Amino acid sequence: MTKPSIETCLSPALFDYYLNKDAIVVVIDILRATSSICNAFANGVKSIIPVENREEARLMKQNGYIVAAERDGFKLDFADFGNSPFNFSKEHVEGKDIVYSTTNGTRTIHKASCCHEVIIGSFLNVSAIAQYLKNEKRDVVLLCAGWKNKYNIEDTVFAGNIAQMLIQSADFTTKCDATTTAIDMWQRWQHDIRGLIEKTAQRWRLHDKGLDDCIDFCLTTDITTIVPVFKTDKIIAIR
Amino acid sequence: MTKPSIETCLSPALFDYYLNKDAIVVVIDILRATSSICNAFANGVKSIIPVENREEARLMKQNGYIVAAERDGFKLDFADFGNSPFNFSKEHVEGKDIVYSTTNGTRTIHKASCCHEVIIGSFLNVSAIAQYLKNEKRDVVLLCAGWKNKYNIEDTVFAGNIAQMLIQSADFTTKCDATTTAIDMWQRWQHDIRGLIEKTAQRWRLHDKGLDDCIDFCLTTDITTIVPVFKTDKIIAIR
Repeated sequence: MTKPSIETCLSPALFDYYLNKDAIVVVIDILRATSSICNAFANGVKSIIPVENREEARLMKQNGYIVAAERDGFKLDFADFGNSPFNFSKEHVEGKDIVYSTTNGTRTIHKASCCHEVIIGSFLNVSAIAQYLKNEKRDVVLLCAGWKNKYNIEDTVFAGNIAQMLIQSADFTTKCDATTTAIDMWQRWQHDIRGLIEKTAQRWRLHDKGLDDCIDFCLTTDITTIVPVFKTDKIIAIR
Repeated sequence: MTKPSIETCLSPALFDYYLNKDAIVVVIDILRATSSICNAFANGVKSIIPVENREEARLMKQNGYIVAAERDGFKLDFADFGNSPFNFSKEHVEGKDIVYSTTNGTRTIHKASCCHEVIIGSFLNVSAIAQYLKNEKRDVVLLCAGWKNKYNIEDTVFAGNIAQMLIQSADFTTKCDATTTAIDMWQRWQHDIRGLIEKTAQRWRLHDKGLDDCIDFCLTTDITTIVPVFKTDKIIAIR
């Protein structure tokens, strides 16, 4: 039997070249969208509805939804809150449907929706993601949201973490240079992820805006075993 | 004075997001297009005319040009020779204009031609490229040709080599995650580039087609001090 493959797509703008409709796509936006989504599920959110543009988000707000929306790190004026994972607290999200629009993350989720399944990964649920993929035994595409279609380090090193766990299980294979690089990066930096993050552009973007208080939290592993999955138009928990 | 910046574009499909019309763009396609071009200049070629599609290459052949053309590693039937750097020997190229069309490399050169200048980099002229960029003191975009718009390792680690030389000179700066990763990769693998290449997809593509005889040659440093530059419609030597 052919082993399922792992590919890593380093930017949403490259997704067409890595398109594999049979694959499970893991959407990765460590700082901060997918970390925030995972934290929302850890805190009992009912669903997250990702919307691409701000007008759609504004309309959903007018229709009574709670809306989390940011652009370039800042909360949009009509939104209930922005993109920090700390906003997705039990008090804000438990039992609720939350509309969510971000610079890179939500667009990426929609982009992947033509594939077999789209799940949401972050360090907060890394072991659950890896275990789910091992159970499903399907091809995997690790889709890094990046920053405005540019490559970023934090999403890639997380892809390396997942890929390494899958390769170690011996049930997966890869011939993808981006995956090889991601694993290489994970192997070099796994014991000093904070040191690696210090070198990233996004770390300084967040710092300059006073939004870097969440970095340590976003690098925390396994606060939840929930695997969020995008179904039709919303993200719900796979139980 | 602001230091000139270094950015690394990991795929031609991402070039729009790294577009900087004031920059010198270094086109990189280590296995094998830019190595072959540099070897041609080392062997006294007059000019290389990069053409994107095979029909244009065929027409140029009918018009009397010597044509080097390949797709997926194999020489096109009408071409005089294919893409191995060994084909660009003194006997074949000295004093001549050569038309050249490849899977990834020539398309990438045209893509970059809206910028200040496009030069051709490979390990064969790595020190000359770095010295030229240091002299020019302009922004630099290291443009990796990749493979069919996918990321590849061999172009990235070469970008890391160049970037490291520029950063070390203290005259350049970078806030680009792709450049940071490329430097990281170069630092980890510089003493075992052959070992890194063993992990790449292209190494196995070439092997499967019996085209991997040129790998060691493509990793040889500084066989020439010529910096090839793309001017209007052809690549010539900057003397």
